Amino acid sequence: MAEHKAIRHHEFGKPQDVLKLETVPTPEPAAGEVRVKLLAATINPSDYGMIGGSYGRLRELPAVAGREGIGEVEALGEGVTGIEVGMKVRFPEEGTWQEYACMPAADLLFVPDAVPVEQAAISFINPPTAYCLLKKVVDLEPGSWIVQNAGNSAVGVSVIQMAKAMGFKTISQVRREELIEPLKAMGADHVVIEGSGWAKQAKELTGGEPIRLALNSIGGESATDQIKVLGTGGTQVTFGGMVGDLVRFPTRFLIFNDVRLIGFWWDKFCKTQGAEAVKEVMDAVYAMMADGSLKLPLEETFALEDILAAVEKDKGPRLGKVLLKP
Amino acid sequence: MAEHKAIRHHEFGKPQDVLKLETVPTPEPAAGEVRVKLLAATINPSDYGMIGGSYGRLRELPAVAGREGIGEVEALGEGVTGIEVGMKVRFPEEGTWQEYACMPAADLLFVPDAVPVEQAAISFINPPTAYCLLKKVVDLEPGSWIVQNAGNSAVGVSVIQMAKAMGFKTISQVRREELIEPLKAMGADHVVIEGSGWAKQAKELTGGEPIRLALNSIGGESATDQIKVLGTGGTQVTFGGMVGDLVRFPTRFLIFNDVRLIGFWWDKFCKTQGAEAVKEVMDAVYAMMADGSLKLPLEETFALEDILAAVEKDKGPRLGKVLLKP
Repeated sequence: MAEHKAIRHHEFGKPQDVLKLETVPTPEPAAGEVRVKLLAATINPSDYGMIGGSYGRLRELPAVAGREGIGEVEALGEGVTGIEVGMKVRFPEEGTWQEYACMPAADLLFVPDAVPVEQAAISFINPPTAYCLLKKVVDLEPGSWIVQNAGNSAVGVSVIQMAKAMGFKTISQVRREELIEPLKAMGADHVVIEGSGWAKQAKELTGGEPIRLALNSIGGESATDQIKVLGTGGTQVTFGGMVGDLVRFPTRFLIFNDVRLIGFWWDKFCKTQGAEAVKEVMDAVYAMMADGSLKLPLEETFALEDILAAVEKDKGPRLGKVLLKP
Repeated sequence: MAEHKAIRHHEFGKPQDVLKLETVPTPEPAAGEVRVKLLAATINPSDYGMIGGSYGRLRELPAVAGREGIGEVEALGEGVTGIEVGMKVRFPEEGTWQEYACMPAADLLFVPDAVPVEQAAISFINPPTAYCLLKKVVDLEPGSWIVQNAGNSAVGVSVIQMAKAMGFKTISQVRREELIEPLKAMGADHVVIEGSGWAKQAKELTGGEPIRLALNSIGGESATDQIKVLGTGGTQVTFGGMVGDLVRFPTRFLIFNDVRLIGFWWDKFCKTQGAEAVKEVMDAVYAMMADGSLKLPLEETFALEDILAAVEKDKGPRLGKVLLKP
């Protein structure tokens, strides 16, 4: 029986404590299924929550880790038609840090050939989250100002590039000076340093225009600053990226400024809004990846067996995404 | 020239530091105006914010303090028709802790005779806030569960009585054991003690039904408990009563449970929704006050000159409202 490499965990905990490189049987596609071969997988902030046991949905143990990856169809089960070996598809979600997995052909999400493989690998979670944050939460007029923290995260750089393409203006909060120039080169209007007192200058940054939308994936002071600079009737969306510190806020902003705080979770969007809505979002993402208006930076590529080094790189200071390849 | 007593302040600060009993000229009603004589005024939590300088809108100094009171028309200016001396009206809002004030007849808010004067005195801020929190923020199905803190505040007891009349069910958080029975006697379904770990038993209190709406006027742990017990898609409304502690919350509830945090401010409702909308709310409040389904408890009545004793009583442990009479 064929076997392949997989990064699994038998309990919830820190990656360095619980992740194991194991060999598992390679499944044959059942009737109606295809087998997908991994081309590249990613590490997402939410992977740590799923491995650690704190995420909003968890897997049965033992579990293959990883949620996102691009693969190609490698074998067809009985009765599968209209699908060819070699087609690029999203790797089965229930565990992408492995070489092969099977899934129903009917559930495949196809990736256009015009999208580069490395971009496709990171196209399934962060870019559609960024797209929804800009398009599906609040109705923004062209020219509207947006503030976001974690400006250098994959969602952050997606927001910067998409906002520019859509005609919105961005203030991106980051923790390190050296991120300012790279983010401006991607189209950021302003990049500010956390803890620098930037919120006091917010009005000057926007030329007096109100900030309509705040995107929060960090919490803590960073999120409190956003609540303070939001204009009357503004919205702060906390989304499922980094699930971070507690948010503290003076209630006066909700009462007197009519600020509202809501959440967004791409997983829930996919589950509740239906396949058509998801396809519409992905089509928009792929159009921007294909024409180059959205291009996420890449940091470094690791082999599956070097997962702990990859995690280390992922946590350290970086701007681009860390990829895993078989 | 006639004069009358007024409680004024010439700077923002604590009541005991800045409030002065003063004698001011009693104005004659100009053309189109009426003069209103105070029958009873109240002390509201927001008065402290207005006197202290932290509220969402502030008065020019020197200012007569107080926002809420019931009066009767006492003199008519030139050209005022259709209004009779003795009619019960809301005392002019720009300062109710005084004996007389004038206002345009066109802006008068009339109070039905069927409403007892002491109830009318406290009908203009807290009961309509409670009504809007239940009816204007979220669409609640009959039988829906609501949680609120400051259950013994004037908004709190209004919520308890209105919710019962409307067919909603309430969990009221309070700080003292001795409030449990009086609130239950008013129709509260459950009354729980802050800090007692009640949130862990929330499911048992509702028989497993989700809590759809949380009403917060305190902040701090009390508000955090509410966020934790809200059902998926639930809403926490922070409103302009006591403007209290910072709210701290783990962002996971926004992301994974789709909880949203919004604000409500009756002042803003009045300013933005128009006179018809305000009248509709007040009509509903007066209908309940007239038929006895809404009856706010009264604590003690003070003369205007005893304002500091009244403030002291207002801040101390109490259940009913403190009234001021000339």
